[in-house]
Amino acid sequence: MTGIRDEQTAGTDRRRPGRPRDPVAEQRILDAAIDEFLERGPARFTIDGVARRAGVGKSTVYLRWPDRDALLVESVRARSRSIEDVDTGSLRGDLIRLTTNLLRFLRDPLGYATFRITVDAVANPAYEHIARELAQKHRHAARRVFDRARTRGDTIDEAAVDPVVECLYGAVTMQVLNHGLDMASASEVDLEAHCTSTVDLVLRLLEP
Amino acid sequence: MTGIRDEQTAGTDRRRPGRPRDPVAEQRILDAAIDEFLERGPARFTIDGVARRAGVGKSTVYLRWPDRDALLVESVRARSRSIEDVDTGSLRGDLIRLTTNLLRFLRDPLGYATFRITVDAVANPAYEHIARELAQKHRHAARRVFDRARTRGDTIDEAAVDPVVECLYGAVTMQVLNHGLDMASASEVDLEAHCTSTVDLVLRLLEP
Repeated sequence: MTGIRDEQTAGTDRRRPGRPRDPVAEQRILDAAIDEFLERGPARFTIDGVARRAGVGKSTVYLRWPDRDALLVESVRARSRSIEDVDTGSLRGDLIRLTTNLLRFLRDPLGYATFRITVDAVANPAYEHIARELAQKHRHAARRVFDRARTRGDTIDEAAVDPVVECLYGAVTMQVLNHGLDMASASEVDLEAHCTSTVDLVLRLLEP
Repeated sequence: MTGIRDEQTAGTDRRRPGRPRDPVAEQRILDAAIDEFLERGPARFTIDGVARRAGVGKSTVYLRWPDRDALLVESVRARSRSIEDVDTGSLRGDLIRLTTNLLRFLRDPLGYATFRITVDAVANPAYEHIARELAQKHRHAARRVFDRARTRGDTIDEAAVDPVVECLYGAVTMQVLNHGLDMASASEVDLEAHCTSTVDLVLRLLEP
């Protein structure tokens, strides 16, 4: 019971009081939610479908998550990967790694699903929080990359940093939108080569 | 009947033979489809809802469009605007106009809905055709801008053209994704100022 008390102390505000959690069922529901989302898309994602897939009753799902959006957001968050932790020793290397990781992530079904949530967040307040969280994660990653570059003594045109990051992340997104359907066969080497040429081009903008 | 025969000659393959078209009802259905799409999103967009909104029977809609995706795509196409026809007399001016038009379009509900279709097209073959059509429209617009610049005698680093266009369109998309919810109050002047600073930055990359 210690674990439960600890968690109550930490303040999980959504769970009904007095109902012990079943972490195994919860994980099964989160996994089922991701599978359901990837297979059926946000449009046809329902609590019903997730419960059926997880082999639990609908009420078990509702015990923990108030609605489909809350479940969807938590399942995506639970699976989101640390694509933004890069440290290669150089600004150029870090930017290539960062953009290649992002391109690889966006082309995989979970990453693409995450991107769809970010796009939907523009119009759907239920996704606003996770979209901001994801955007912030990427912003912080870029900030760390540039902070390390300054620590190493790189001279950088500070005014160019934000637009360059916007261009890089944007160019990767355009790649997925324009070639998403043709890129299934692109190898890791292709992805990195594409990102390298974009980074090498925009790096010139950072020279003071 | 001439109009109908002309259209049959041109080959509208979806319409059932022998049923005269009702252009007024068709336009009403297309308008209702856009309204339904904007209000309910792609997830909750149904032929039922469109028929109800247009005040026609479901069978009338199915006479002309085989399914919801076909109707959605045609209604978006019918409303898509010529945001890409720009000719200001200079490369810088054209790129600023092009990106400002795109940013304004993406922030308006119809443009944002169109963007969502493009994003969904990565995973939904029903939207693939219109997504390619839209991407091609933008590619051609950019090509015309650069062709005119060459005709005027501008010297351009040709290797940089495609990545620069990708960065510009990408940066605009990032703007909408990152600030979509906060940008409702941004004025036309704000939009143009943002695009101008991005264009001025990346223009340096086009110098040979």
